[in-house]
Parts: sequence; C-alpha cells; structure tokens
Amino acid sequence: MIGLFTDFGPGGPYVGQVKARIWERLPRLPVVDLMHDAPRFDPRPGAYLLAALAPELPAGSVLLCVVDPGVGTAARRPVVVHAAGRWFVGPDNGLLHVVAQRGGAPRRWEILWRPARLSASFHGRDLFAPVAVALFAGEPLELAERPWTGAELEQWPADLPEVVYLDHYGNAMTGLRAAALAPGSALAVAGRLLVRARTFGEVPPGRPFWYENANGLAELALNGGSVAQVLGLRVGDPVRVVPAAA
Amino acid sequence: MIGLFTDFGPGGPYVGQVKARIWERLPRLPVVDLMHDAPRFDPRPGAYLLAALAPELPAGSVLLCVVDPGVGTAARRPVVVHAAGRWFVGPDNGLLHVVAQRGGAPRRWEILWRPARLSASFHGRDLFAPVAVALFAGEPLELAERPWTGAELEQWPADLPEVVYLDHYGNAMTGLRAAALAPGSALAVAGRLLVRARTFGEVPPGRPFWYENANGLAELALNGGSVAQVLGLRVGDPVRVVPAAA
Amino acid sequence: MIGLFTDFGPGGPYVGQVKARIWERLPRLPVVDLMHDAPRFDPRPGAYLLAALAPELPAGSVLLCVVDPGVGTAARRPVVVHAAGRWFVGPDNGLLHVVAQRGGAPRRWEILWRPARLSASFHGRDLFAPVAVALFAGEPLELAERPWTGAELEQWPADLPEVVYLDHYGNAMTGLRAAALAPGSALAVAGRLLVRARTFGEVPPGRPFWYENANGLAELALNGGSVAQVLGLRVGDPVRVVPAAA
Repeated sequence: MIGLFTDFGPGGPYVGQVKARIWERLPRLPVVDLMHDAPRFDPRPGAYLLAALAPELPAGSVLLCVVDPGVGTAARRPVVVHAAGRWFVGPDNGLLHVVAQRGGAPRRWEILWRPARLSASFHGRDLFAPVAVALFAGEPLELAERPWTGAELEQWPADLPEVVYLDHYGNAMTGLRAAALAPGSALAVAGRLLVRARTFGEVPPGRPFWYENANGLAELALNGGSVAQVLGLRVGDPVRVVPAAA
Repeated sequence: MIGLFTDFGPGGPYVGQVKARIWERLPRLPVVDLMHDAPRFDPRPGAYLLAALAPELPAGSVLLCVVDPGVGTAARRPVVVHAAGRWFVGPDNGLLHVVAQRGGAPRRWEILWRPARLSASFHGRDLFAPVAVALFAGEPLELAERPWTGAELEQWPADLPEVVYLDHYGNAMTGLRAAALAPGSALAVAGRLLVRARTFGEVPPGRPFWYENANGLAELALNGGSVAQVLGLRVGDPVRVVPAAA
Repeated sequence: MIGLFTDFGPGGPYVGQVKARIWERLPRLPVVDLMHDAPRFDPRPGAYLLAALAPELPAGSVLLCVVDPGVGTAARRPVVVHAAGRWFVGPDNGLLHVVAQRGGAPRRWEILWRPARLSASFHGRDLFAPVAVALFAGEPLELAERPWTGAELEQWPADLPEVVYLDHYGNAMTGLRAAALAPGSALAVAGRLLVRARTFGEVPPGRPFWYENANGLAELALNGGSVAQVLGLRVGDPVRVVPAAA
C-alpha cells in the first residue's frame, strides 16, 4: 500500500490532489493517511513521528512524506530512501533522517526525473506522487544513488527530548522511545515531574503522567483531559529524563 | 463495508493505523469514516450519535467503534454486539448501549481472543481492527456470549435531552429523536425557546430554530451561522422539551 | 473517479454518509476528497476554488459539490453541469458558475428525479450521491436541460479579487488566476503591498508575498508562518491588483 505522511492539514485541498494522481494510475490501491497534521514549517519533529509510525505499514509499502518548507528551491533535493524494508519519497531536508538512522542499511537516491508539469510549491502532487506510483509498480525511474555519510546520519540525535506532537486529545508525544529509557525514569516537563503509568485508566483523573504509546514513544498524558492544556505544552518544548533514584 | 466511528480526531495518526490493519487483510474493502470527532472522554453522547448514524451503512456492515477512556483496564471488556442487522466492535462502556436498546433482539459477546501484540492504549488498532476483519470475512473468533440484562438495557434513557455534538457549521445535535417528540414541541436551551422548522432556508438568518436532521435527531440550528456560538452551547448542555400549548 | 468538494468539515459525520451511498453501488470506485473545508454559508468563494481544483481530476470524472445554504427550499434547484470534460452535481446557487464560465460550451440540466427518501437538509447524501453514481455508471436519469443564458454566465466576475480560502498553513488563496495578472503586478491587501515570488524558500522568513499556487491562483503567503495571522486576513477580504510601475 501507499502511505501519506504530511503537514497538509485535515480537510483541505492538498491530500485529495495527491490521491487523484495515485489513483489515476493505480485505482485499486489502498492509500493510507498516516498523518496529515505533522508539525508545520520544520521537518525535525516530523522525522521522529514518521520513524515511529512507519512500521505500521506492511513491508514493501511506499511512504510519501511531505514537510517541505524548502520546496522549489535548488538546495532542497527530492529523494527516495529505502530503510527497514519500506520505501520513502520526500524532500532531503531531514524528514527521512530518523527513519534512515534506524533502518539498518539505509539507501538514498536523488530523484533526477522531472514531470512535464512541476509546480514550484506542490511537489507532493507533481513529483513525489508519480515517483511513489513508479516505485510501487516497479517501473524504471531516473535516480542517482547518494550514499549517506556517517556524519549525516549522526547529525540528529537518536531520540529527541522534546514534545514533537500534540494529538486530538491533548496528549503530547515526545521524540523519546520509551524502550530507550531506563526503568523507573520520570520525565520533567514544564516544571513538573511525570511518573510512568501503563495506561490512562490506571491514573486518577487530572494527574499528568507518561506512558509508552502504541508506537513506542514516551507520551505525556492525563486521564480524562488534555495534558497540553493543563501544562501549557507546545511542540518543541524540552523534556528531561530523570532517572529513578538509586 | 466496514465503518469507523471514533473520537480519534481528523488528520491525526490513529485512523490510518486502523485502516492499514484492515487493508493488510482486505485490500479491496471500502472503509467508511462515519465520524472521527465524536465527543472525547465520555462514551455517552457518542452512543446516541452512533445509534443515529449506524443505519446509514448497509445491513451486514461491521462498525468499529472507539470512544474508550478505560482502554487497557481490566474492568472494561472488549465486545462484539449484533443489533439491527449490523455488527459493532468496541469497548463495553456504554458506547454500544443505545444501538443495542434500539436493535430488536441485540446480542453481545465478550472478545476472548487476544492478538500477539496488544498495546495498552490502542485497542482500535490491535484488537478491534482484526476482530472487525474476522467478522467481515466470516472467520472463527474466540467469543463468549454475554446476554444483556433488562436492567443494563434500561440504564440509559431511550432519548437523551442533551446536546451530544457540535458540527462544523456550529449546529448542535441533541440525543432526542425528532420522531419521539410530540408535534409542535419546542426545545428550551440556554434560556431560549426554539421552535421547529423544516430546513435552514425557511428561517430568517440569525434566528435559532430546531429541525429533524438527516439522521432523525432533533438538531438546534441557525440559518447562515453557528447556533453553538450564538447561544454559547457545549456538548452536555441540557435541552428541555416544551410541548405545544393546548 | 468521483470527487467530493464540500463545506462538510473534516472529521464530522457527513462525508462518510455520502461515501457509504456511493460505495454501496460502486464498491471499487476511488472517491477523492477534493476539499471539505470550503467556506461555509456562501457558495461564491467556493465557486472559484472549485474551478481551480476541478482540472486535477481526470476527464470523465464526476464531482459532487456541496456548499448549499438553501438546501430543501423550492427556489434552489439541484442540477447537473457538464463543463471542461467533467460532470458536476450540486445546487444551482452559483457554486458551479465559475466552472461553467470557463468550461467552453457548458451544459446544465435540472435534476427532476427524486429518491424514495429525501431529507430536507442533506441532499449531498440523498440526491447528489445517487445522481453522481448514475452519471458515472451511465445509467438513465430524469433530467431537463436548462441552457445557461449569457446574463447568467456573466453575473459573477471571471476572477474574484478577494480572499477565498485560508489553508492549514495560514496561506490565503485569492479568486484571481495568476495568469490573468500582468507581469510585475503586486497585490494590495490589508494595507500592505505584496510583491510576487516564485516559491516560499526564495523569500526571507516573515515577509508576506504572493505567488502562483499549484492550482493557478494568486496566493498570499509567508515563508515559515501564517500570512493570515500576520495580516489578520479573513475569507472575503478584498485584494487589489497594483500594476507594475511603467
């Protein structure tokens, strides 16, 4: 299947134009909206979200990824990445960086092919959608391999100690994998220390906690309410790991 | 077809993960987003919305239903309900209660089967999606029938005299079926008395009214504007039925 | 394929009911959500958006279009329009007007057929969805041709010098086609003069500009932020074209 991971927003005119381009060629293909409210204007928080969500699509899937403030500029190259058995198509601005870090032997190719019509601002529709279709259908594509250097891959931390996403309930996902935290760790955020729980119903209503969410990330939450509202959280807020007392 | 009725919110990362799980197994199956902005944290308003929307899917459909604040706790059991010719999969927290009340001879089964991976917080993806697929495909499932008692079925009122949903236009759906109201009834809400109209264009702009919406619910509305904003309405606000003067 | 262009809002209960009606009849058909957050209560801005988006669906597609404040009133007739190789189904309230203006030899038919169940407020589901299916499937339909008069077609301007849509990034689309503006034109809005750029990354962060968006419209934008917020823009705000100095 093809998955879409974007900051296009829900309801608006961008997602449909991408799907129309895909379904023109592959009308029976399931296209999964992995996320359309990734943080805007900055690919970094999205990179950690994408890496957490990508395993939910079956191996062999193609993920079309767009958080692309540099669209249409010469410095920002369009790329295909192969990592962890999946294909990723998107801008080479860091959005695919964490997926590559965690993907074993990741490979990267610059997309040299250009469509007959290429708008300056909507490469998701004009460039990435037809490339995703070609990858899925196994069609030839004009690509040039651009191997990752170690320095590139170490440019961003393995885990990001920040709030990377506020969901519809007001829960705050962090860029930290719960499995990377020592048992008993607490998380300090906005002047509060949050201890770990297993799930919402185990915590009295109104008390902030953190838990391992269903995609493996440490997530700040509140039973029956919005932790983002109660603690005044925003994407980018720092989160500090506090090891268990000895 | 399979329908999704959730409080996951639009745009976010949850709906897609559920669809990926369904389409992995049934890639050609239409999956309908019945609603993803059901009121959060409380299954009661959603129960009346679900009962109003469910008839829109063809008989034989499977509805995956999630408003599930108790997810991952022992007290909250996962169930399958059959009512009015449709299957419902979700938490046994009241969300499926009104559907069962109205369903003739409703049946209920506890889901004993557990998937290899069961997160503490996302049973929509890990448990309900594969169960919905199994029901749709007619595959065997480990279930144990748990018949409803009369007391359970009478626990919640047949109609709920409250605002249960504010839509994108600012219209306010109530938990009252219009057909259950005596002809000429008015509705009192937020200190105002609203009389009935047939549709928006029949009422002068700016004057609140109520009408039978396309799903049979009494809905508070305003021609050309948001009744929720004008009257300051919120989900849970009481609505009083005022019979026609004799 | 069938495309949906509505003001139903994202996440809510209306889009799914329309798709259920389509997929009951054509379960394998791709249905594209072209836009569900068209401006409410007024078909005029939507008419210019629809005309910009429609070419993104392949020739032969059927577009189901709903911005329909007059739904259920006698004055507002349901129509089918054929223009530019595509079919449009919706209310005859101006929403299809710009599509017809630009469509070469547009044709219009009033829909005389009525379904067994026709709610007063949801013709998208009850009337337009089955008509869209019939058009797509080539089934007979009770229609009566209502040719456009020249006066009707000239009633609305070819281009609308107003903000017609604010997107998820805070960019402001206008009803002006960029190709209709003289080279070097600036746009005056909210007391500011915006010059043209090719794409976001070419402009220093924080400075408002305008560019030709990927659907051919002149769009007001800001690199790395929301021009709507910075300039306090709303749908309907006037935009003035300022020709290049001689």
